[in-house]
Amino acid sequence: MNTSYNQVAGQSVERLAALSDGIFGVAMTLLLLELRVPAKELIRSESDLRRALVMLAPQLLVYLMSFLTLGIFWVGQQTQLNHLRGSERHLTWIHLAFLFLVTLMPFSTRLLTGFITYRTALVAYWANLFLLGALLYLSWGRATRAGMVKSDTPPKVVDAICRRIWTAQAFYAFGASLCVLHPYWSIGFIVFMQLYYAIAPRYEPGQQKGVA
Amino acid sequence: MNTSYNQVAGQSVERLAALSDGIFGVAMTLLLLELRVPAKELIRSESDLRRALVMLAPQLLVYLMSFLTLGIFWVGQQTQLNHLRGSERHLTWIHLAFLFLVTLMPFSTRLLTGFITYRTALVAYWANLFLLGALLYLSWGRATRAGMVKSDTPPKVVDAICRRIWTAQAFYAFGASLCVLHPYWSIGFIVFMQLYYAIAPRYEPGQQKGVA
Amino acid sequence: MNTSYNQVAGQSVERLAALSDGIFGVAMTLLLLELRVPAKELIRSESDLRRALVMLAPQLLVYLMSFLTLGIFWVGQQTQLNHLRGSERHLTWIHLAFLFLVTLMPFSTRLLTGFITYRTALVAYWANLFLLGALLYLSWGRATRAGMVKSDTPPKVVDAICRRIWTAQAFYAFGASLCVLHPYWSIGFIVFMQLYYAIAPRYEPGQQKGVA
Amino acid sequence: MNTSYNQVAGQSVERLAALSDGIFGVAMTLLLLELRVPAKELIRSESDLRRALVMLAPQLLVYLMSFLTLGIFWVGQQTQLNHLRGSERHLTWIHLAFLFLVTLMPFSTRLLTGFITYRTALVAYWANLFLLGALLYLSWGRATRAGMVKSDTPPKVVDAICRRIWTAQAFYAFGASLCVLHPYWSIGFIVFMQLYYAIAPRYEPGQQKGVA
Repeated sequence: MNTSYNQVAGQSVERLAALSDGIFGVAMTLLLLELRVPAKELIRSESDLRRALVMLAPQLLVYLMSFLTLGIFWVGQQTQLNHLRGSERHLTWIHLAFLFLVTLMPFSTRLLTGFITYRTALVAYWANLFLLGALLYLSWGRATRAGMVKSDTPPKVVDAICRRIWTAQAFYAFGASLCVLHPYWSIGFIVFMQLYYAIAPRYEPGQQKGVA
Repeated sequence: MNTSYNQVAGQSVERLAALSDGIFGVAMTLLLLELRVPAKELIRSESDLRRALVMLAPQLLVYLMSFLTLGIFWVGQQTQLNHLRGSERHLTWIHLAFLFLVTLMPFSTRLLTGFITYRTALVAYWANLFLLGALLYLSWGRATRAGMVKSDTPPKVVDAICRRIWTAQAFYAFGASLCVLHPYWSIGFIVFMQLYYAIAPRYEPGQQKGVA
Repeated sequence: MNTSYNQVAGQSVERLAALSDGIFGVAMTLLLLELRVPAKELIRSESDLRRALVMLAPQLLVYLMSFLTLGIFWVGQQTQLNHLRGSERHLTWIHLAFLFLVTLMPFSTRLLTGFITYRTALVAYWANLFLLGALLYLSWGRATRAGMVKSDTPPKVVDAICRRIWTAQAFYAFGASLCVLHPYWSIGFIVFMQLYYAIAPRYEPGQQKGVA
Repeated sequence: MNTSYNQVAGQSVERLAALSDGIFGVAMTLLLLELRVPAKELIRSESDLRRALVMLAPQLLVYLMSFLTLGIFWVGQQTQLNHLRGSERHLTWIHLAFLFLVTLMPFSTRLLTGFITYRTALVAYWANLFLLGALLYLSWGRATRAGMVKSDTPPKVVDAICRRIWTAQAFYAFGASLCVLHPYWSIGFIVFMQLYYAIAPRYEPGQQKGVA
């Protein structure tokens, strides 16, 4: 019926990238909007304020974790889009579903900071991470099948993008499962693993030239 | 009087696209900002929290519906802009009016989640959808008349874009009219219809090559 | 001392455009964030809700006015940037000052909706409009003097951009001065004038070809 | 292990610029979201409202300072990105860390407006500025070492970018140290210094041509 519209809808990978940058930008900034300044009534001296700020540390750690998460998925999505020659409506909708989960992250983060000792909150947070990864995986599969990947992309890059998602999801699942001990173990493990990924100590600038 | 300014104002379709991505990005992320974490006082155990999260399901469904709506209209607007060779002030202002209605969506959504059993809330929500569609229709008419559509756009694409708006609006109007039974019927129908559109089960990747 | 840095800083007109679209996009969407859904306790029937929505009309009119204002200034700034071949640090900082006033608009709007019968609120609102116009005027002056305007821009376009700012500011000042009668007169006049500008009934598509 | 992914991840300097514009745009607009309209109950006459607006002046000064800060760092980051031929994952993550600190700025600003006479609040604010500068410095070092700087960038530009960060940080540190007298001295000094930088009275348009 509306096949013809479907054939021309959502073909701009630049618009998709711009909307993604908008949504990631808002979501990343909103995370910290919930970081409340200490109540004025409770602060009577410099040391009160210092103590109140130190008390914000666990919350700040969760925000850092969510920012790292969004950063990692932003890099992951960017890497895919950089290798696309265009888009089509199915691919666009997979990315819109991915972006819906990005807009859920501030909620999952508020839930976790509010109920940091509850396994339920941690499992909900992990479900968000899992679904983000699943959609990124679906998106890459779709892009490959629909012939949207640039023709000069080496096959090992196509594989590396898939493998990276599997590895990360395995670590997230292991991290989440640590909540049978205590949610703090999960949070600690995930933050450590994400910082390790972000800093990537074993990655050397010289290797760069090999591919690009 | 200020004709000369009107002749040079608002000619950049890239700027229009960038502003639209900004506004859609913020509106899509703000939808879920209103999704409140359960109050700490009411949660004493893991099962309390699980129950509270389950209770958020109807709200989450409305947010999903609004995100789908914004996604559908974003794809619709993108598809139009992709086929424009430039813009001019009338067209720019039609799109600004369209964007005003986009910024109304978080309000209409809050209204519907707050008064989910009220027909008035549903009719207000539908009016928002209807006006979004009407402006998209006006915009395409204006673009065609003002000679802003790229010259290599096949006539059947021009028609498909119009027809798609009519079809969607007919479904929205039917969905809204179901509220004489109960607003839940309207919401259910609209969500189902939007998911069907987003997933587009009958659309095959092979057909893609025929046009692009 | 840091002359050399000043010579290379802030030269990208694309980045300036992108930041502007971001700030305008957020400011335009935040305007309506303050539009509060009626309190649940006060609504017991469909007619209660209908009446509560009708009561929101004056607020909605102010939001529409602010959206129109931001739209007009966005078109105005876009038109300038479209004619620039690049930027330099002074010009960039004039635009950053302009964007600061854009971020003030949601505050001025909240002030006016909260104190709609107060002349002080209207004068503060008008001061915001006036400063926005003044900076746009300064920016165009600076761009001309610093040789940043594209060399193929006809002199009458350069003049039209200046003249347009003067005309609009004269109307805004007249509109604001009507508050000696009552702030409603000011609001009514400004909304009418802005709608007239946005719709531009005397501007015909055929005239377009004359310039571009 | 995932070396191959690291070699292709995060290479788009355009996406980095777009995300930065999104985050800066949201952060700059959110600063003023916290500027509260006077409470209706306290305002009974025009002069009450005028007095209440005058009382907002110190808060507005802090917001102006934060907007200037974000503007300065936005120009600083833009200047770096304008001279890059591409990005790579380490550089991208340094900028993501920089953007995390940008999202902290609205919090630091709320803290300072809430506790404007507390040294602790001022030191926290300064720490935010210091870390923003440190990451910008790291980013430029990394870009130089990884060979990401455009080959036609003159060495004196590379030096000017470094020197500018050192100079600014020295002034910020001196300004912050003035809080041993009173936080107002720090705020006054930093605002004055930033306005001086933004207006750059000694920078002449003619010098521009020397470099570009």
